[in-house]
Amino acid sequence: MSANPAAVLQAPGQITIENRKIPQPGPGQVQVAIGAVGICGSDVHYYEHGRIGDFVLEAPMVIGHESAGTITALGQGVDPSRMGQLVALEPGVPCKTCAQCLAGRYNLCPDMRFFATPPVDGSIAKYVTIDAAFAHPAAGLTAEQAAMAEPVSVGVWACRKASVTVGDRVLVTGAGPVGLFAAQVARAYGASSVTLTDLSPFRLEVAAQLGFDTQRADEPLATDSCDVLLECSGAAPAFKAGMRALGRAGRAVVIGMGSAELPLEVFALQGKELTVQGVFRYRNCYPAALELIGTGAVKVAPVLTHRFTLEETEAALTLARREPNSLKPVVVP
Amino acid sequence: MSANPAAVLQAPGQITIENRKIPQPGPGQVQVAIGAVGICGSDVHYYEHGRIGDFVLEAPMVIGHESAGTITALGQGVDPSRMGQLVALEPGVPCKTCAQCLAGRYNLCPDMRFFATPPVDGSIAKYVTIDAAFAHPAAGLTAEQAAMAEPVSVGVWACRKASVTVGDRVLVTGAGPVGLFAAQVARAYGASSVTLTDLSPFRLEVAAQLGFDTQRADEPLATDSCDVLLECSGAAPAFKAGMRALGRAGRAVVIGMGSAELPLEVFALQGKELTVQGVFRYRNCYPAALELIGTGAVKVAPVLTHRFTLEETEAALTLARREPNSLKPVVVP
Amino acid sequence: MSANPAAVLQAPGQITIENRKIPQPGPGQVQVAIGAVGICGSDVHYYEHGRIGDFVLEAPMVIGHESAGTITALGQGVDPSRMGQLVALEPGVPCKTCAQCLAGRYNLCPDMRFFATPPVDGSIAKYVTIDAAFAHPAAGLTAEQAAMAEPVSVGVWACRKASVTVGDRVLVTGAGPVGLFAAQVARAYGASSVTLTDLSPFRLEVAAQLGFDTQRADEPLATDSCDVLLECSGAAPAFKAGMRALGRAGRAVVIGMGSAELPLEVFALQGKELTVQGVFRYRNCYPAALELIGTGAVKVAPVLTHRFTLEETEAALTLARREPNSLKPVVVP
Amino acid sequence: MSANPAAVLQAPGQITIENRKIPQPGPGQVQVAIGAVGICGSDVHYYEHGRIGDFVLEAPMVIGHESAGTITALGQGVDPSRMGQLVALEPGVPCKTCAQCLAGRYNLCPDMRFFATPPVDGSIAKYVTIDAAFAHPAAGLTAEQAAMAEPVSVGVWACRKASVTVGDRVLVTGAGPVGLFAAQVARAYGASSVTLTDLSPFRLEVAAQLGFDTQRADEPLATDSCDVLLECSGAAPAFKAGMRALGRAGRAVVIGMGSAELPLEVFALQGKELTVQGVFRYRNCYPAALELIGTGAVKVAPVLTHRFTLEETEAALTLARREPNSLKPVVVP
Repeated sequence: MSANPAAVLQAPGQITIENRKIPQPGPGQVQVAIGAVGICGSDVHYYEHGRIGDFVLEAPMVIGHESAGTITALGQGVDPSRMGQLVALEPGVPCKTCAQCLAGRYNLCPDMRFFATPPVDGSIAKYVTIDAAFAHPAAGLTAEQAAMAEPVSVGVWACRKASVTVGDRVLVTGAGPVGLFAAQVARAYGASSVTLTDLSPFRLEVAAQLGFDTQRADEPLATDSCDVLLECSGAAPAFKAGMRALGRAGRAVVIGMGSAELPLEVFALQGKELTVQGVFRYRNCYPAALELIGTGAVKVAPVLTHRFTLEETEAALTLARREPNSLKPVVVP
Repeated sequence: MSANPAAVLQAPGQITIENRKIPQPGPGQVQVAIGAVGICGSDVHYYEHGRIGDFVLEAPMVIGHESAGTITALGQGVDPSRMGQLVALEPGVPCKTCAQCLAGRYNLCPDMRFFATPPVDGSIAKYVTIDAAFAHPAAGLTAEQAAMAEPVSVGVWACRKASVTVGDRVLVTGAGPVGLFAAQVARAYGASSVTLTDLSPFRLEVAAQLGFDTQRADEPLATDSCDVLLECSGAAPAFKAGMRALGRAGRAVVIGMGSAELPLEVFALQGKELTVQGVFRYRNCYPAALELIGTGAVKVAPVLTHRFTLEETEAALTLARREPNSLKPVVVP
Repeated sequence: MSANPAAVLQAPGQITIENRKIPQPGPGQVQVAIGAVGICGSDVHYYEHGRIGDFVLEAPMVIGHESAGTITALGQGVDPSRMGQLVALEPGVPCKTCAQCLAGRYNLCPDMRFFATPPVDGSIAKYVTIDAAFAHPAAGLTAEQAAMAEPVSVGVWACRKASVTVGDRVLVTGAGPVGLFAAQVARAYGASSVTLTDLSPFRLEVAAQLGFDTQRADEPLATDSCDVLLECSGAAPAFKAGMRALGRAGRAVVIGMGSAELPLEVFALQGKELTVQGVFRYRNCYPAALELIGTGAVKVAPVLTHRFTLEETEAALTLARREPNSLKPVVVP
Repeated sequence: MSANPAAVLQAPGQITIENRKIPQPGPGQVQVAIGAVGICGSDVHYYEHGRIGDFVLEAPMVIGHESAGTITALGQGVDPSRMGQLVALEPGVPCKTCAQCLAGRYNLCPDMRFFATPPVDGSIAKYVTIDAAFAHPAAGLTAEQAAMAEPVSVGVWACRKASVTVGDRVLVTGAGPVGLFAAQVARAYGASSVTLTDLSPFRLEVAAQLGFDTQRADEPLATDSCDVLLECSGAAPAFKAGMRALGRAGRAVVIGMGSAELPLEVFALQGKELTVQGVFRYRNCYPAALELIGTGAVKVAPVLTHRFTLEETEAALTLARREPNSLKPVVVP
């Protein structure tokens, strides 16, 4: 059959299921039959607002980018043994030639083509194509697990940026999917303790069941109580409180998006010589993320609270506003 | 003579010249006859407000901490050949035993004793004592030059934190003494270009005469026009503009004190994966600072615009408010 | 009783038990009643040869340096709550003032005083004194476990030097006590796989029971089979084979002592841009080592194969030559 | 005219001038009329032995790889304003897709295509083509200066690997072209002192005229006399002496090729915690190299001692053996 149903964002608040042409893999590419696509906050944001920062929806676009599936066709030059392989799809393919790419910072490539970032189509479809090098082998995992390599990679990248290691006390502000994954990754990187904060009792309960210390986000944090802050809430007060909680030479990574501006207190920044870094997606993290999922160091089941068919994509996108006690929905085409 | 005249801050706005006891060096210490003391913005701040953050003047305190002089007596165990040596005094002596000290971060020692940070006396006096290891040999320099190792060390530390090297385009916001020194240090570290911004035509003119590019701080900076931001103004708009001007993977160091809070724009921080670091004084920087002054890579003469005797210390502390076209005053006891 | 029996190395091959004076703690020191002391290869080397490199036994010296015990007296200025605390003794106390110490490299201090490195007495005694900052709290451990913080710190330091982290394939050449600890530490730092090599079937069996991959040291290693080499054997062929097995950008740490000279193949070093680092003891590693022992990430029981009383110290020192299927003996005074 | 004369290595010791087809630029490529090509030791090695390590001459190959010229034609997608631009040619173009490339280590790409590394043709020809991104703008330089960006990049890469900066005492063993360039680069990176050693009085004289300290390679070096060793001689004794001369925490970079194996003394490596790194070509260094040549921080004239026409390529390749007081020959087609 030549059918390739896809969930298309026509305009803010409007998803249709269209039959797109089945894409054929070019040289160095593979065609993948999608098995699972997680829904990310950015998908919801495009659905609700039609834009994120400078990226504006100007034409209908297939939504979704946290995906995994099975290789169904190979472009020229791709290793034939990969046919039928389960793969996790790293959704952004860089130009590979610009100064950022050559410097090893391909996630900062200005010409990145990223699933479901306008005008590039996403992956809630029956078939997509992608560079073979960005279709990462995920043998032994389920498609849902493999799809979670995307948000887990966000955690891997943040932990690398923060150099999380044995001896570190890590504070994760925000116990949503990203925070829950980042916390598990931090533990796998050797962190001595990991504490999550949130306002939602449901999320704190999930965190506790994963074995983490938890605290309500509106309760005060002890001074010098952490070495690393992984800010996953996007909330200015959480950042401010986290920066105050950091000990000397502490390291903060800003992962969450929400407040356009965060308050940076100079007394803490200088007096403790803190470092603050922003992260943009990730680079070279998929293999580590898949390994951590495969060994069970990162558990995805507690985060994947709801499942939808491709036809129900819109319901997946509106889940968070209907059901506060949800975490991440996954679409299974 | 047993006289040891010293400039004592009695209370905000009140300096007296007192005759203090001549201090005798303990084991591992040296006694130094002070030859020159630069006046720093923090000295002026204590003079005007009696406090900086948590450090509060609660008893009379000798002021001043950017000092150099000649060794006049040796404590037990100090190399006898150091007698008579010109030395630059690193003004903060840490406990050497706490976790921060053992980790090599002695500038973050919570038990640091720092000249003219309450309740520790400073160095505008005829004689002071200090650990021999913090009295750095400065042969070949003048006392005024050697005293400038303190603010030059601030620049060295900032450039190390930012890893300034060949190929970097450096933006220095604020062309006061710290900015002018940091800019010269950045050039010595190999920076490909250094631009200073300020609102004062006088300061921009000094910067230009030192060979730097200059720009008015209220004129827009080009996007992706620098790799490193050394924020020396303490002004929130300068920080914000500098962060916007940074290119991808840019590095900012916050040196200036002024605004209690700086606005940290998340879109820039994340989209370009910027790093922001605060600096607190410096560590292990005096030898490099003295070397740069000695080779002429850092020129201090254009910054030392006014000279005062010890008795005129109060006039030195009020210079900035009387004379906008001044940079750093130096007290020569 | 004022007795302080100690195991004294009089000359190569000659240990006597002497009653030494009970040491009293000076300011900032603690007195510790020793509970356990591991025997290290360097102890055996001093026993057999009377020297290691430039360190030569010129007078009788108490032997032993991997020790733990209970605080029995406090010097001036020490926190009174530490009385009775179980502590692991970091055996080397640096001068804290030299350039190496101030730079945070206290293990490279030229004036280090280290237990059982001539002429400093070691710790196989009933009582010793040491700086409070080098007596690390070990609540919840046994004295034997706490004593093992010393060789475990060697592994921690090596893993830090090699930046072992998630995704790394680690090769440990030499499955003696140091190798077995380093391997366990590497796993705690997130290593994806750890392989040990040795010639001894007994040692390989211990490694296998700890869950590691093992291989005979005289069998060929696959090309590009590891990212990190922790050389713990001191054998030149092991180093050479390990360097060949490293993949591109691989990192080697030379921990073992044996061959005075190792063969460094330029083709591998350059073509793969390898990094080789030597380690000398450790710095700031005890807290992490104790934590790893406490959580069970590092198991010490399989390594502590034999126990001796203080009076049997000489038998402990000759164990390795008598009993090939032994690992580390521990002396329990 | 359609002529494209080129210097072709037919077999060891045999160069012919052939008329090759003029290459046409593919998409993203440029065609360059070669203006100057430096002769490197590796060119001489291929000429004499027909191989370097695993790279074996199996068919006639154009020789030469240190080249610069003028853009004469543009492939699809290349910025039209680049027509006529003087460019320095970075001779190795990686695959851009493998794990090494994506990790930012393109110089370690196993599928690198590098001028005059069998079976890839080199650049002693009238015309070559290359990826536009590897043809670096060199406005303001001469073609000879621009061609030297290749060996200067070797120095840049070594200085980056060694983190050469202000305060470092740098020892460069071997005052041939690579050593003389590396020394100049080290100075530009802020090195406090740079000393070159060699056995050739001629080379030491060139080094001295460039303002460096010099020493005969067979005279003893003082202990703890340098922080960084840039080994450019390929001679085992020089490496050994340099490692002994390094101070604590010293860093060595092995650049020279010669001895297949270097003697690594464990006592020095461990006792001083030295780091040894191998370098393989360079990555992302051309812009910095061109800048340093452009500002005069790196002078190429003293190194380019002899000039040859394309027809005289063989004479250029045999210069070193005929004329000991030569440094680098350059071929000017």
